[in-house]
Amino acid sequence: MFPEKVFYNLNMGKTGTQPLILTPLNGVPDIQPGNPLAAIILEAINNQNIGVEDNDILVLAQKVVSKTENRFFNYANLKISPQAAELASICGKDPQFVELVLSESVRVVRVAPGLLIVEHHSGFISANAGIDHSNIGKKDLPGEKWALLIPLDADRSAENLKSEFLKATGKSIGVLIIDSHGRPWRIGTVGVSIGFAGLPALVDMRGRKDLYGRVLESTVICAVDELAAAASLVMGQADEAIPVVHVSGFPYPLGNGNLRELLRPKEIDLFK
Amino acid sequence: MFPEKVFYNLNMGKTGTQPLILTPLNGVPDIQPGNPLAAIILEAINNQNIGVEDNDILVLAQKVVSKTENRFFNYANLKISPQAAELASICGKDPQFVELVLSESVRVVRVAPGLLIVEHHSGFISANAGIDHSNIGKKDLPGEKWALLIPLDADRSAENLKSEFLKATGKSIGVLIIDSHGRPWRIGTVGVSIGFAGLPALVDMRGRKDLYGRVLESTVICAVDELAAAASLVMGQADEAIPVVHVSGFPYPLGNGNLRELLRPKEIDLFK
Repeated sequence: MFPEKVFYNLNMGKTGTQPLILTPLNGVPDIQPGNPLAAIILEAINNQNIGVEDNDILVLAQKVVSKTENRFFNYANLKISPQAAELASICGKDPQFVELVLSESVRVVRVAPGLLIVEHHSGFISANAGIDHSNIGKKDLPGEKWALLIPLDADRSAENLKSEFLKATGKSIGVLIIDSHGRPWRIGTVGVSIGFAGLPALVDMRGRKDLYGRVLESTVICAVDELAAAASLVMGQADEAIPVVHVSGFPYPLGNGNLRELLRPKEIDLFK
Repeated sequence: MFPEKVFYNLNMGKTGTQPLILTPLNGVPDIQPGNPLAAIILEAINNQNIGVEDNDILVLAQKVVSKTENRFFNYANLKISPQAAELASICGKDPQFVELVLSESVRVVRVAPGLLIVEHHSGFISANAGIDHSNIGKKDLPGEKWALLIPLDADRSAENLKSEFLKATGKSIGVLIIDSHGRPWRIGTVGVSIGFAGLPALVDMRGRKDLYGRVLESTVICAVDELAAAASLVMGQADEAIPVVHVSGFPYPLGNGNLRELLRPKEIDLFK
């Protein structure tokens, strides 16, 4: 699965001398639509006496960004298309929910009992277009079916937060928005990037020499997804309520990547 | 891609109060076959004044374990089977190298120009059965072609190291052996587990309640792969020479998982 194309090349610094420290922010309250997320996060950081420096990174769970942006959606009145009805009969999910998933997607990748894998408008592939019910804090009244969609443009959400952090602190802080996705071949979810700002998407080691002076042929590291997995580990998934993690010691220079850079186009993917 | 079956269920503690700290060990020398790896690592830890506690974890790059176990292999004299010849003509790799990959594999998953994805005897799926040329420190003399294979049984390698750490320090330390794999859909490699001891493979949140009291339906976290990605970020890939990372603050209780628990059987995988 080595990549055939890489869009971002970084003149790298040297890794390996400082620890990577991921600190969960404990004081972030339940977020409501329209809440000033950046200010709430900075307050939690101050309360926890975490010093924020240039090149630190704040990793946010997708849900907290979606809630701020009021991406709640009541799909109780969605009209069910023939495609949604057919897919629902295969995967066994609520046909209106399937219709909602389709409306967030450009393409169905796989469908099977219990499983609907699609390509989201943003380009990433996941089950149910990243739409979730747990931890959304919205109770279905009669005639309602609430879901929480992912941010409309998570790269832009990250960029906006980065700007607000800069304005408030004077520091250039990377921002990473993550979700938990399942994977082919391996059981269990891992944290992955769905949008970011001020970070390199990929770190290209090709052309660099290895320890023995041999030129590395094909190593491109998806540093931002490695960081997403690391932060996800710290967040947990159920009642821990840790939607934000502060990171210091990221071993690469910050960059200007975006999500599209790390998504493999269909033409060069054997599993799409 | 939610899992249909989970083999390990953990009575979990609560995450989210302590930082996760990943410290690169700087003083690990180039490892030679037969070197006392556990002792070398403990010396590096001491030199760096890292206190080792119960529930800490040591993450090791696959290469350093393979070298210790003398998994160097000269494949210059391998006889090329018709299958290897045919695959080589498709992927454009050295037919003897393809033969070597096949000898380490149970099944070819995909072949395409530049790409040979197989299922390794251990059950994981990756390009080239995890066989690598970079950083192996072996120069091909005339008539030689050296490669470094992954450990015969990486779970057992981890278990042995765990026992040696316990004997030397009196502490129960988790051991994780990782490699960097590419993935469908996303460009770039991320660190993944290929063997471990004293760690939970999966953390099963099903049946737990989310923040709002709703029962989580299908969240099973592959905590060990999230940790692998985190440690891989700290290791880097080229001339940094950081084959070992010390981890404190892993947010889940240590367990007794193994690699097979997190590999999805062919019957329930849509991408094999």
